[in-house]
Amino acid sequence: MNKICELFGIEYPIIQGGMVWCSGWKLASAVSNAGGLGLIGAGSMHPETLEEHILKTKAATNKPFGVNVPLLYPEQQKLMDRIVKHDVPIVFTSAGSPKKWTGWLHDHGIKVAHVVSSSSFAKKCEAAGVDAVVAEGFEAGGHNGREETTTLTLIPLVRNATKLPLMAAGGIGSGQAILAAMVLGADGVQIGSAFAVAEESSAHPDFKTLVTSLGEGGTKLALKQLAPVRLIKNGFFQQVDAAEKAGKTASELSELLGRGRAKKGMFEGDLDEGELEIGQVSAQLNKVLSVSEIMEKLMDEYHESKASLEGEKFSF
Amino acid sequence: MNKICELFGIEYPIIQGGMVWCSGWKLASAVSNAGGLGLIGAGSMHPETLEEHILKTKAATNKPFGVNVPLLYPEQQKLMDRIVKHDVPIVFTSAGSPKKWTGWLHDHGIKVAHVVSSSSFAKKCEAAGVDAVVAEGFEAGGHNGREETTTLTLIPLVRNATKLPLMAAGGIGSGQAILAAMVLGADGVQIGSAFAVAEESSAHPDFKTLVTSLGEGGTKLALKQLAPVRLIKNGFFQQVDAAEKAGKTASELSELLGRGRAKKGMFEGDLDEGELEIGQVSAQLNKVLSVSEIMEKLMDEYHESKASLEGEKFSF
Repeated sequence: MNKICELFGIEYPIIQGGMVWCSGWKLASAVSNAGGLGLIGAGSMHPETLEEHILKTKAATNKPFGVNVPLLYPEQQKLMDRIVKHDVPIVFTSAGSPKKWTGWLHDHGIKVAHVVSSSSFAKKCEAAGVDAVVAEGFEAGGHNGREETTTLTLIPLVRNATKLPLMAAGGIGSGQAILAAMVLGADGVQIGSAFAVAEESSAHPDFKTLVTSLGEGGTKLALKQLAPVRLIKNGFFQQVDAAEKAGKTASELSELLGRGRAKKGMFEGDLDEGELEIGQVSAQLNKVLSVSEIMEKLMDEYHESKASLEGEKFSF
Repeated sequence: MNKICELFGIEYPIIQGGMVWCSGWKLASAVSNAGGLGLIGAGSMHPETLEEHILKTKAATNKPFGVNVPLLYPEQQKLMDRIVKHDVPIVFTSAGSPKKWTGWLHDHGIKVAHVVSSSSFAKKCEAAGVDAVVAEGFEAGGHNGREETTTLTLIPLVRNATKLPLMAAGGIGSGQAILAAMVLGADGVQIGSAFAVAEESSAHPDFKTLVTSLGEGGTKLALKQLAPVRLIKNGFFQQVDAAEKAGKTASELSELLGRGRAKKGMFEGDLDEGELEIGQVSAQLNKVLSVSEIMEKLMDEYHESKASLEGEKFSF
């Protein structure tokens, strides 16, 4: 049996990335109901909001689901307490040390995956006892590794560094890419962008429309002096880019960023002044689809792609 | 039959990228003799040097081979004249318009491939009548696209944009990566870094030793204001990086770069002051091998990887 399916008790080794302002209970429960693993993105939630989303997810699906907790916000303990209180079976941690919560979560019977952008961090995950790792490449949306290693380069390196069940993330928006990532050594995938623009995503409709209209070069990794983040090249990005080119300091950039920029853009739909996070694979996304349509498309493409290996193209 | 094998008359759809200061007649003829397509890298050659390398390649192999001509240097006509004079069967052009030479080369019975970093340029290649395209991602060494699209993201987009035979480049250093690139839609691959450190590469031994010791994050795309190029993070890179962070202008950066930096580093072995170009996949390269060892490894991995798709990991 596929290791990711076995570990999480799911039908397809497809994880929906826990994304700020996109993945609430509607998206997470829809993905879990469709046979993948839905994650509530706690990065944009206060504890009471997370609690509400957990309860609504449980009401909407009997399948396994999880919560993604980025370890760069305050309120971590409060978020974790609500997770335990409501028997969430799976937690994905990111943007911090895998040592911090893994033992505690295991003590509460919760499975833990951690997101990394390098093989050295994957080894730290193994040492910390996590159950699985997500290796995320440069092309991914949102916060990103400083070393800029792409998914194609990263997955074989992480595969070589650890025997842990491994999910590939960054640049994956089709069944062909799922198969390719697995050929490179992954056991499954985490998909962000394609689900960020699903009908069930909480993102603002105008954000979804913009993402599905982007072409190649529509995003760029920015704010490398703070925490690197992949952004759509909108008005706010242009301000950041100009400031970076002019050699502004980290604290000047931090002031320019201010607070609440991602909410303003992705949730409230201010496409000019907001911080708009999405992956490079947005260039492959042309339409807002429902989660069930996305999952069906991914699996059809995966199976077609796998069957195509019988063809003469692959024979040499 | 595989389209790339058919087009070029080769056994395996593996092209050795034409790289400055690495791919002379020794490397090109060894790759062609091993069943791939060897390319002489004319980017670092004057016409008489190229002529010498063509003649030596022809003496060393009866198999098809080619020349890569980057269209950013002067002397293009003289290089092309020597190519025609000595009946070179295949030319790869890069870093310029595919319209410029394709018709002329076809008139002389030469097959033409062009290197692109976006699907819009792939369409221009099709309109210009080229026989095949190489789509090269952000992780590749040397000069690179401004849009920073990674190989994983780029290949499906280019596949969707053109029916031309397609080679994937950037991040490919194993048989698993060859299969993954082909699953994404490529018909074959172009491999640079792994051949840059082959025994038969003309690069300085100290450069090869450094490349095979690099880890993740050992390279970075730099000089984006001039022409983006992926460099090893050596002393020269640190100077460039500091200048860029201080907001220096393109002409100041150009002055810092000066002339002959790549030769100094890659060919003469000045690892501190030279410009050292290599791909991210260098993190996967740990040993200097002969071309025949590299080709055998790649094909073994390819076949094992293809056979592994029968396993339960892929069954869901």
